[in-house]
Formats: sequence, structure tokens, C-alpha cells
Amino acid sequence: MGMHEYIEGLSNLETLNRAPGFFKYQEHTVAAHSFKVAEIAQLLGDIEEESGQTVNWQRLYEKALNHDYTERFIGDIKTPVKYATHELRRQLAEVESRMTQNFIENEIPEFLQERYMRRLSEGKDETLEGQILSVADKVDLLYESFGEIQKGNPQSVYLDIFRESLSTIIQFKSLKSVQYFLNEVLPDLLNEQFADRARLVAISDELLKRQ
Amino acid sequence: MGMHEYIEGLSNLETLNRAPGFFKYQEHTVAAHSFKVAEIAQLLGDIEEESGQTVNWQRLYEKALNHDYTERFIGDIKTPVKYATHELRRQLAEVESRMTQNFIENEIPEFLQERYMRRLSEGKDETLEGQILSVADKVDLLYESFGEIQKGNPQSVYLDIFRESLSTIIQFKSLKSVQYFLNEVLPDLLNEQFADRARLVAISDELLKRQ
Amino acid sequence: MGMHEYIEGLSNLETLNRAPGFFKYQEHTVAAHSFKVAEIAQLLGDIEEESGQTVNWQRLYEKALNHDYTERFIGDIKTPVKYATHELRRQLAEVESRMTQNFIENEIPEFLQERYMRRLSEGKDETLEGQILSVADKVDLLYESFGEIQKGNPQSVYLDIFRESLSTIIQFKSLKSVQYFLNEVLPDLLNEQFADRARLVAISDELLKRQ
Amino acid sequence: MGMHEYIEGLSNLETLNRAPGFFKYQEHTVAAHSFKVAEIAQLLGDIEEESGQTVNWQRLYEKALNHDYTERFIGDIKTPVKYATHELRRQLAEVESRMTQNFIENEIPEFLQERYMRRLSEGKDETLEGQILSVADKVDLLYESFGEIQKGNPQSVYLDIFRESLSTIIQFKSLKSVQYFLNEVLPDLLNEQFADRARLVAISDELLKRQ
Amino acid sequence: MGMHEYIEGLSNLETLNRAPGFFKYQEHTVAAHSFKVAEIAQLLGDIEEESGQTVNWQRLYEKALNHDYTERFIGDIKTPVKYATHELRRQLAEVESRMTQNFIENEIPEFLQERYMRRLSEGKDETLEGQILSVADKVDLLYESFGEIQKGNPQSVYLDIFRESLSTIIQFKSLKSVQYFLNEVLPDLLNEQFADRARLVAISDELLKRQ
Amino acid sequence: MGMHEYIEGLSNLETLNRAPGFFKYQEHTVAAHSFKVAEIAQLLGDIEEESGQTVNWQRLYEKALNHDYTERFIGDIKTPVKYATHELRRQLAEVESRMTQNFIENEIPEFLQERYMRRLSEGKDETLEGQILSVADKVDLLYESFGEIQKGNPQSVYLDIFRESLSTIIQFKSLKSVQYFLNEVLPDLLNEQFADRARLVAISDELLKRQ
Repeated sequence: MGMHEYIEGLSNLETLNRAPGFFKYQEHTVAAHSFKVAEIAQLLGDIEEESGQTVNWQRLYEKALNHDYTERFIGDIKTPVKYATHELRRQLAEVESRMTQNFIENEIPEFLQERYMRRLSEGKDETLEGQILSVADKVDLLYESFGEIQKGNPQSVYLDIFRESLSTIIQFKSLKSVQYFLNEVLPDLLNEQFADRARLVAISDELLKRQ
Repeated sequence: MGMHEYIEGLSNLETLNRAPGFFKYQEHTVAAHSFKVAEIAQLLGDIEEESGQTVNWQRLYEKALNHDYTERFIGDIKTPVKYATHELRRQLAEVESRMTQNFIENEIPEFLQERYMRRLSEGKDETLEGQILSVADKVDLLYESFGEIQKGNPQSVYLDIFRESLSTIIQFKSLKSVQYFLNEVLPDLLNEQFADRARLVAISDELLKRQ
Repeated sequence: MGMHEYIEGLSNLETLNRAPGFFKYQEHTVAAHSFKVAEIAQLLGDIEEESGQTVNWQRLYEKALNHDYTERFIGDIKTPVKYATHELRRQLAEVESRMTQNFIENEIPEFLQERYMRRLSEGKDETLEGQILSVADKVDLLYESFGEIQKGNPQSVYLDIFRESLSTIIQFKSLKSVQYFLNEVLPDLLNEQFADRARLVAISDELLKRQ
Repeated sequence: MGMHEYIEGLSNLETLNRAPGFFKYQEHTVAAHSFKVAEIAQLLGDIEEESGQTVNWQRLYEKALNHDYTERFIGDIKTPVKYATHELRRQLAEVESRMTQNFIENEIPEFLQERYMRRLSEGKDETLEGQILSVADKVDLLYESFGEIQKGNPQSVYLDIFRESLSTIIQFKSLKSVQYFLNEVLPDLLNEQFADRARLVAISDELLKRQ
Repeated sequence: MGMHEYIEGLSNLETLNRAPGFFKYQEHTVAAHSFKVAEIAQLLGDIEEESGQTVNWQRLYEKALNHDYTERFIGDIKTPVKYATHELRRQLAEVESRMTQNFIENEIPEFLQERYMRRLSEGKDETLEGQILSVADKVDLLYESFGEIQKGNPQSVYLDIFRESLSTIIQFKSLKSVQYFLNEVLPDLLNEQFADRARLVAISDELLKRQ
Repeated sequence: MGMHEYIEGLSNLETLNRAPGFFKYQEHTVAAHSFKVAEIAQLLGDIEEESGQTVNWQRLYEKALNHDYTERFIGDIKTPVKYATHELRRQLAEVESRMTQNFIENEIPEFLQERYMRRLSEGKDETLEGQILSVADKVDLLYESFGEIQKGNPQSVYLDIFRESLSTIIQFKSLKSVQYFLNEVLPDLLNEQFADRARLVAISDELLKRQ
């Protein structure tokens, strides 16, 4: 048992769409999302390091790259489902976690199991790298919803996602990298030309004032 | 000038197909390929480390993740074009490299330029991490061509790609991770059921014997 | 609260693919599958009626048409997942059933709730109509896998699905409509020209002999 | 001659798009449309029954499910074509009807021919079930055009379709199920957030006032 | 009334697929087919001219480029439909021809009507250019079916189309350009590597012998 | 060496998208674009001829049909790339031109090489036909950008393309066919209903006044 099954399974993430049927202009696969989150985490890590923090780069890349691998087993159903209660969502997370364990025991050679146990478990912990992952995941979601808004999609659900993503990012505002994002990246995004610019600026201003 | 343009540009790589029109059953985007190469490089790095090598994980992830970012500027045209001579290919590479430089000067804040100059330049150097990238890039291409062969695509060009990828991987056979791939992963791949199994086994055997 | 949400939600089933990433030549949406199962159930009902059985047509159409509506809530993950144990699959079914209940309570007006409770619960019961649904669901799956085999897809998983579907259909061989399917429809299917004809005939013969 | 050809032909309706090239955000196949019309007819039948009418459920489901099967032969060209006169459209309908007859004689076993003659002929007659089909067909078209309007498609042709669909529905306003649709479903639809809300409300109000 | 409607209508032909649902590996739009037929006709015209024939190039390009424009009105339903008799097909052709006339009268300015009447009527007449169009149309169809066969599509219908196309081309074998195609182009096509090569060679040999 | 490779290569242009990832509502292949440009050139040629000019129809069709064939070799990267300087663009054009030459020498029989050298080189010269090609190429681009604007795409880049296309067309305003386009076609286009009508009219008026 080598890692053939693991490598071959990567292509599943190339065909698995995030939130199937949700995005109207551009669909996003789990593989592409993982790539973008790793790129964004890399940038946030740069800022932290430039600000004097010590970044464990191995952990940061590892967390970002692998954080959605387990969607292979149960799909993207952790995504808020309107009719799922908190309890039902907890049950789904548990099912996913146990399928992941079955996968590791069946497909990963023993001498690598510990590494993959770490990589395929929840990465959003309290470490600096875990916090950067939480932020990077939401930055990509914010850009995904912005992609819809920018192209004129008038459904309010994208404004909701934008608001909710930005709101989560702001919770990490003690991080220098989040301050950089809010001060240097977000204004450029809001300066682009698009139909709903006024509403997006209003939402952003309101969230930023509340800090 | 923050990094808005850089982050927004990531979604270009989500829509840019590798070798447009080449793969018949499953297309691959540059973003998904980058994700898979980083995952494969991570695995090869594991094996090296378990074999006693020292892996610079930051460099390894960085190289793998960013190695095709510059395709954003000129597309996937380094791919062998039948009518391009060696000289024409060299000219194209030079054009790409100068566009990359223009991009970094225009879009990356000065304090980050050195980091991105490193990330967006050729990563396949003589270091252990550079060699792992060379192998990981070909392992993904080998699996991409296998994906076509396995689904019954009878055009010989996929067998050619499989052969050429495996042949390049074998050139790095002094690496423990390549030995692991040849001994533990490739046999499982060749054991799957598919129409052209006999020819693929023959190709592999022949290449492996020549070592 | 009228039924706007219910009607609008039908279009979710138009975009939700069955077993995402599984079928290579032709994808099937839940809406199209439901249509085909209802058409097939209608035909099986015809045969039963012509054979002297009494068919409750309202129940038959209702069962067939609505049998996968609840996939809207949790997707097509009841599909055999390699790493899900029996226990994990039971938990998923329970989660889906409770989300369905939440949906009915929140979106269906009270005077219609009983009807939809019946329609959105498991339809494959011991009644003649429930048995026909079980058969029709597998006949469509058999044709879906045949669609892949016929187009030359050499992966053995489609032969497995064909075998497993036919095997389930045969379990209901006391039904006149199943006898009709085995004697009058299956032979025409096996008479079509395709690469793997010999293997498919062998599989079918073997299953039919075992009866 | 069993029904293999009929069952296999169902998958044609999975790949045949309604009004090819017309819908910009979401295409609709004939199979998915048939499923949705049957679901909507089921709901309208519920309301009629709750209002004391006797519904022939077998006929209702049968009409709704099969009403567009014959598009398999000539495609969706009954759709208003700008340059077709009334006379030309009549000729096309006749051609389609004769192809259907050829199909039934060649592919349906004799003992089932009468059933399929009934199912594949025009279902929109004066019976309660025929009227419900007329309404359900337009409710789905109304939602299809609403899907475009809601996503911001500014071309006036979708408003025209919305108007024309609603106008046909209103012609059946003596049906309790239509009154329910106008009073309980349409207001929820018009309450959703979308760019052209004002114009859609105006169109609806105008049509409703004229009654 | 200028030609805005005509130009805008060209994009309809970009979205209209030839024989919808027929080709499994690569769909072909009417616009792309028209382009390819014009390119092939250009090549056949070259050969005629090199062989000493006089080619009316304006007529040749005009015929090839516009020969399927009228599919805009009635779609690609002249394609052999299994259940259409010769009489029904004639009726459809008549409907299409009258819609074309309505279009010209309504949308083309009077001073250009004669030109478009010529361009949008049947081009496959007895002139050299009309014969070249007949051949070029079939050469493209032959390559379209070859595209399926070459990629391993085992359904015999593509062999039928290949045979029927080649058979029509051979009927024009008194043309030098057809002799060139049979002697210089077809052998290279048959020399490519693909699964069904033997059968295709056999079909071609048989047809060529019968001459 | 016949022309098999040339004919087979036509289908590459069917799968090659213009400006990949740029158009959001409707993608355009190089084959479809070539067809449309040839149709538009044909119309512009009509007007010139009706105005008393002598049109070399063979050259006009030839130029229009073949003007983008060489994109097969290097893709659509002559399209303004933000980070390409004038010098880099010149180098790319040179690479493309030399690949074209390699193609002609390797794949076109000698007795046809001169014809294809003419067809595959730059067609936008000072002749009437070369000028018509320049205009037709921009008219199609103008309609492609209008297709996005009309469907509500609010990104200003499509207005930029519209402006730039119209501006180039106006440079050829000494041609009768351009006068016809500006006076008889453009007003009908601007009279259609769409969200950004006011801005498009303003842009057009401004450009037309500057003449």
C-alpha cells in the first residue's frame, strides 16, 4: 500500500465544486480554492514576518493546502444548509471526521499516518498559523462573492456572504496581516467599478466602524 | 498599491486550462494543477525526510505552489508546440520572464518584491527542493495522461506523455522519494483495470530496465 | 407562506448532479433522473395492470416523482462512499430525514404538510407501488451505467454498477413487470453494438441463471 | 420489440435543451422541465382537491409527465420563431404529430400502443387535468424567466415571457389552484430582492387589475 | 432598417449545435461548421484551379460560408430523423424555405435582398462550385465522425456516418479535387493510430473498390 | 503529404477560445469568430460594390476567413496583455510568424505553399479588401462586447472594448461601407433595450462628434 490512492484522489478535488449551484458566474472547485487559500495564507504570512512575528512556514502551508481535502468524503455540505440545525451540522462533521479516519487507516502507509492525521484534521486552531488559515479561507470566500457582485449579480445573498466574510476577518484584526488587508487591499477592491459599489462600500464602512 | 491585483489575479488561474483542447475526458486548470503538484511535493518531501534528508519545507511548498503562476501572462504555450523550434521556445520563455518582471514592478509593493521575484522565477534548480518540484510536476502530468488512458482514450499521444513523464522521473532516481514512487506507487497504478494495461506495463518495464 | 419556496427549490434539482464526477460521458441531474424513474415506473405499472394487477396510479407517480427531492438538502451522499461504514451511512440518512422535517415545518403550509410528509419520506415500501419504485430506480441506474459501457468506457466500475442494478431488479422477479423487463427489454439492450458486449452478456447470463 | 427504445430514448430528453441559446444564466433540459411541470401540477392538484374538486390523479400525472416527450422528434421549435407565420407553425405541429405516430407504430408493442397514443398526444384539453397542465406549463416558464430577471438579466425579452406566462395563467383564474397561485405564491416571488423588482411588480399589478 | 439584425443573428449560429446530443466527445456549432466547410471548399477549389478548371471564387466562398445560415430559423432538423418519412422531410424543408423568405423581406434592405436570396437558398447545384460545396460539406462530416472514432467511441453510428459521407464524396469522383482527397488526404487519415483503424480501412477499401 | 494535417487542424480552432476567461456570458471560438468576420466582410463588400467600388471578392473572402488561422500555433496572446510592452508584443508576433512558416514548410504540399503563405500572413494591408478586413474584425469585436453590455455585465472593460472598436472603425470612415455601418447599423444597435444604453449612446456620440 503506497500512496497511489491518495494521489489519484487529488483529481476528485478537481471535479468537486464548492457549494454546487451557488455561484452563478464562476464555479469554484475544491482544488482551486485550496490553491488560492494557500497563496493568500502565504501573503498574510509575509506580512506577519515583515512585522516581526515568527511564522512556522511548514505548518502554515500544510494547514492551508490540506484544509479541505476531507470534502472528498462527504462533499461541501458543511456549507450553511438552511434547514440544518446546529446539532445536525455537528453530526455531519462527526461523520466526516470518522470517514477521514477510516481513509487514513486504509490508504496511508503506517509510517506516514501521523503526518496525514495532522494534515487532515481541523487546522483552524489558536496558533498564529491556524488564525491565518481562518482569515485566508474567508478572504477567498470574500473574493468569490465579490466576483459575483462585480459582474452585476443582484441577488442579496452575495452581499450577505461578503458581509459575513468581512465580519469574520475583522474578528482577527489584532493580526498585522489583517490590518494590512483592511488598510491596503480592501480599499483597492472597493475602488473597482461595479454596479453595487455603493452598497458594498456602505457594508464595509459599517463593519469597520463597529470595531 | 496593496496586493489586491495579485489576489484577484489568482482567479485567472482558475479559468486558465492547461494545454487547451489536449485532454479529452478531463480538463485541468493551472490552479488545480498547482494544488496537486504541491500535494505531491509534500508527499515526496515526507519520504525524503523519513529517509534522513533535511527538507527546507518553506522552500518546497513555495516552489510547488507558485511554479506556474506566470502562465497568467502568456498562457500555457511553453507546452511543446509542434512547429516551435528550440530557439522559438527560448524566445517565448524570455518574453514571459520579462512580463513577469513588469508585473512585479507594477503590482507588488516594494517591501515584498524580493519575495515574489524568488517565487515567480524558475523553481526547478539543483537544490533538493528544486529536484522534488521537477519530479512532482511530472508525477501530476503522468497521472493526467493516465486519467485519459484509463478511460479508454486510444490516441497514442497519451502513451507518449506517460512515457516521457516517467522517463523524466527516472532521471531523478537517486532520490529516495523517486525510488518510493517507482517501487510503491507505480505498481498500484499499473494494477488498476483498464484497456491499455498491457501496453502501459510494457512501456514502464522497458523504461525501468534501461536504468 | 405559500409554496413559492418549494417551486423555486425545484430548480436546485436541475443543477444538482447525481454522483458528482462519477459518470464520464453524460452527467445526470436529480431532476432528469426523477423524470426518467417516473417514466419507467409508468411503463412497469402498465405491464402490471395488463397482467391483471390493480395499480394505485396516484401513489405510483407520486412515489416515483418525489423519491429524490430530499437530495436537495444533503446532496447525493447516500451513494456508496468507500470509507463510510454502515453505521455512518445510517447517521447520514437520519440527518437528511431530520432536515426534511425542518423543511416541511418551515416551508409547507399546514394544510399540505401531511401530503408532503408522505411524499418526501422513503417510498420504497412493501406495496406494489413501492416495489415498482425500487425496480424503476435500478432500471434507470442500469441504463446510466449502460450509457457509459456502450460509449466504450472501460473502467470496471460501470460493469459493477450494471451487475448490482440487475441483481437488485432480479430480486423482484415475482413481479410480471420485472419478467417483462428481463424477457423483452434486456435482450434488446444486450443486442446493441458495443465493445464490451461479450462481458455484459456474460454478467447478465450468470445473474439470470442463478435465479 | 419491447420498450428498450422508449427507455433509452428518455436520455435524449436529458440532453435536449429548451429554447436553445435563449436562457443565459441557466439552461433547462426537456427532462428537467417535464419533472418540474409534474411537480407543479401535483401541487395545483392538491389545491383543487382541498377545494372540493375531484382530481383524476392518474390523468394529471400522465399528462404532465409526458407532455413534451415528442420534442424528441422535432426539437423545441414550436417555441415562437419570429419568422414563422401561424400557417407555418401549424405545418410544423402536423409534421411532429405524424412523426410521433410513426414512432408509436414502430417502437411500441401493440398491446401498449393505445396508452402511448393517449400520452403522446396533446394533453391541454378542456378537462380539469388538461387545464392544470396548461397552468403548470406556464408556471414553470414564469419561474424560468424569473430566474433570469432575478439574476439581473436586463433584456426585456424575459419580462415579455414573464408577462405572457402570467397572462395565460390568469386566463384560468376560475380555478381555485390559480387563485391560490396568484394570492399565495406570486406575492412571495415578487417580494424577493432583485434589480428589476419594480418593473415586475408593475407588470403583475397591471395584469391582475385587468381581470 | 440596416443590417443590425443580420449581424446580431450571426451569434445565434455560435450557440446552435449541429445534431444536438449526437457527438459525444466534441460538439460542433453551425458557425464553426460553416467556417470549416469554407476552408475545405477553398482547398478543393485550389486543386481544381491547379488542374486547369476555372473557379468562380466569389460564388464558391459565398456558397460555402452561407450554406447553413437558415438553420437559425428551424434548427438542425433536416438531419436524418429516424421517424421522418421522405414526405415529412420535404414539408420541413418547405417550412424552412418560407421562414427564410419572411426573414429576408423583414430584415434585409431592399437593395440587398437579391444578394441574400441567392446566398440563403440551396447552394448545392450542378455548377462546379455547387459540387465542391456538396463535397466540402461531407468532408467536414467525415472528419466530425472520424473525430469520434479516433477517440475510441465504439458506437457503430459513427462508422455509418463515415461510410455515408465517403460514399457521397465518391459520387463526385470525376472532380480532380475529389481524386486528390481520395489519393492524398484519406490515406493519411487512415494511417493515424486509433482503435477501430482496421474497420475504417475495410469500409474505405470496400467503398473505393466499388467505384 | 496531402492536406490531412491542415483539415484536421481546423478543429483546433473550434476548441480555441478567443481571449480565454474574458467574456463572461458567451465565449467565442476562433472558428466562430472567423465565420462571423467573413460574413461581416461580405456585407461590407456588398455596400462597397453597390457604391461603385470594384471588390476583389476572392481576396476579400480569403483574407477574412483565414485571418486568425495562425492563432492555432500560439493562441490568442496578441490580445493586449497588461504587462506586455510594445517590444514584447513585437517579439511574440515574430515567434508566431516563424512558427507559421515552419508549419507551411512541413505540412503544405509545395504546389500550394505560395497560396497558404499569402493566406496565413497578415491580411490587414492598404488594399480595399485589407481595409474591409480591419473594419470587419472590429465590428465583430464591437458586437462581442455589446453582447456582454446588453446582458447587463457592468464591468467597464466591455465599454472600453466597445469604445476602442468603434474608434478604430471610425478611422476608416472614408469607406462607404463604414458610413453605412455608422448611419444604418449602429443606430439600430443603440436602440435596443439594455441597462447601460445611456452610457453607450454617450460614448458613441462623443466618438462620432470628434470626426
